[in-house]
Amino acid sequence: MSNEKKVRAYTNIALIKYWGKRDDQLILPTSSSLSLTLDAFYTETSVSFDDSLEKDAFYLNETVQDEAATQKVSRFLNLFREQSGMKAPAIIKSTNYVPTAAGLASSASGMAALAGAANLATGLNLSPQELSIFARQGSGSATRSIYGGFVEWQKGTSSSDSYAVKVDDANWDIGMVVVVVNKKQKELSSREGMKLTVATSPFYQGWIDSTAVDLVNIKNAINDRDFEQIGAITESNGMKMHGTMLGANPPISYWEPDSVLAMQLVRQLRKKGIPCYFTMDAGPNVKVLCRLSDSEKIKTAFLDYFNEDQLIISGPGSDLKEITL
Amino acid sequence: MSNEKKVRAYTNIALIKYWGKRDDQLILPTSSSLSLTLDAFYTETSVSFDDSLEKDAFYLNETVQDEAATQKVSRFLNLFREQSGMKAPAIIKSTNYVPTAAGLASSASGMAALAGAANLATGLNLSPQELSIFARQGSGSATRSIYGGFVEWQKGTSSSDSYAVKVDDANWDIGMVVVVVNKKQKELSSREGMKLTVATSPFYQGWIDSTAVDLVNIKNAINDRDFEQIGAITESNGMKMHGTMLGANPPISYWEPDSVLAMQLVRQLRKKGIPCYFTMDAGPNVKVLCRLSDSEKIKTAFLDYFNEDQLIISGPGSDLKEITL
Repeated sequence: MSNEKKVRAYTNIALIKYWGKRDDQLILPTSSSLSLTLDAFYTETSVSFDDSLEKDAFYLNETVQDEAATQKVSRFLNLFREQSGMKAPAIIKSTNYVPTAAGLASSASGMAALAGAANLATGLNLSPQELSIFARQGSGSATRSIYGGFVEWQKGTSSSDSYAVKVDDANWDIGMVVVVVNKKQKELSSREGMKLTVATSPFYQGWIDSTAVDLVNIKNAINDRDFEQIGAITESNGMKMHGTMLGANPPISYWEPDSVLAMQLVRQLRKKGIPCYFTMDAGPNVKVLCRLSDSEKIKTAFLDYFNEDQLIISGPGSDLKEITL
Repeated sequence: MSNEKKVRAYTNIALIKYWGKRDDQLILPTSSSLSLTLDAFYTETSVSFDDSLEKDAFYLNETVQDEAATQKVSRFLNLFREQSGMKAPAIIKSTNYVPTAAGLASSASGMAALAGAANLATGLNLSPQELSIFARQGSGSATRSIYGGFVEWQKGTSSSDSYAVKVDDANWDIGMVVVVVNKKQKELSSREGMKLTVATSPFYQGWIDSTAVDLVNIKNAINDRDFEQIGAITESNGMKMHGTMLGANPPISYWEPDSVLAMQLVRQLRKKGIPCYFTMDAGPNVKVLCRLSDSEKIKTAFLDYFNEDQLIISGPGSDLKEITL
């Protein structure tokens, strides 16, 4: 295994959210979404096929994983085995790089890196677009982690045209301060949360319709590099996702008291003239979209209420890439 | 003024929420609502017409009020003047009875008591139904404070049939623990919050449609005295109202960190087998619907996180009534 290669993929935070599938099996979304890839959070993964193995072995952060986690990886690798004709079991080694034990290890970077590593190991030589389609079938948000910068996941009409495209490199003054509110395992997975929302929320059609409008508007704002407009749309779209969840029956809320505190601090900073905007996903952490040049100032303001290790600054991440050992 | 009479009206907490007007002037709602009247919070008001006065004088808690507050009361009294032919200015004395300085002084009990006192002073001898129509034009939620127990405000087709009806006396084991999170003045009045929601939330039609279904279901549950069902519908409908607000642009949220804490405590108590359910209005306070026989137990559990004066137990209140001095 002297030629073992790793692939690094960065996580991404959706500014226009993905919340709901129209096809659970293929992971086709009900709406298109758009994200910013972050350089502070990534996963590096290698895949080595080896006929001498009895079955797949999955190591995460140098620890062998249990059957459930390994099976999830195996099922995903099977997509590459089917396409390539490769039949051998594999050793999969994956490392999540997160500045602290933040509980932010993301399935987005994880599945994207795994797709990239499987692509190398099978020699399939897939295009980024094809890789995005594969990654999607591991985890919806992984679709977008193939690219750096601002990335759109086009919902498409079928599996073959539901993939990510790059919207903008984000090579300008933009970043995020991630506020780690809680590292606990979520009580309700995003997969289950989505399902319940789609099935029971009377707001769901309103969510889909208005998200389509938000997407058009944020792409225009990105094109214009209109940061305030990007931020306002991000904040509104994220709160709409959480509003849609509150409409589910029973209602779904991932918010903790400190999530509300963090959002209040963002509003206060904005009143003081620092342009910053919050978004939240299916968990209590708050992500603050800001000018990267303002990020230290924002972190300092948050330090009155949060600890140093709860505040992680990140600039925009790059495309998925190969790293030779 | 030896025959001065006071009228007492109790506040009410909506279980099926009122959130949006179809007519701002007449205060006609977009949907019917349903509330529980509470005996711990009430207003007592007297009105005395007096030709020797130059203009109306309004005393609240024995303090003369400024022109803006007095004008609001005067405009409301004009409805009674027009109907009765009474032209004289009046002294209006109003006292809010709240167990603590909780900032819970409600326009519901205030406007209902004022309507009742004006009815007496003008000798109009209005029926409760007519009184409800008058109260509505002072404040939407006051429509329901004419009656005790469970009360429905029927949205009606015009001003003349948009009034409250009693659904059930609530003379059974039911009550509320009101968690006073914050006494500060709201940044956004409910009047403005409603307007923005109706105008901008893509969830608003879903809110109206699903609230109509919730109303039918909760009336059946009240009829069956099915407390768990009443509670589940209350919690779901309240969260839907807040979800609808998160859909507004910009998003509206009245939640404080301690609001989320209180809701989490309710969920924990429920897991421990105490049936209790939360609801919230256009402010950060949390109202816990419970068996009145469980209310002390619930208060005790909350005392680990809140102060004694933040926790107010109330049983069901009665109809608006006359109190002779």
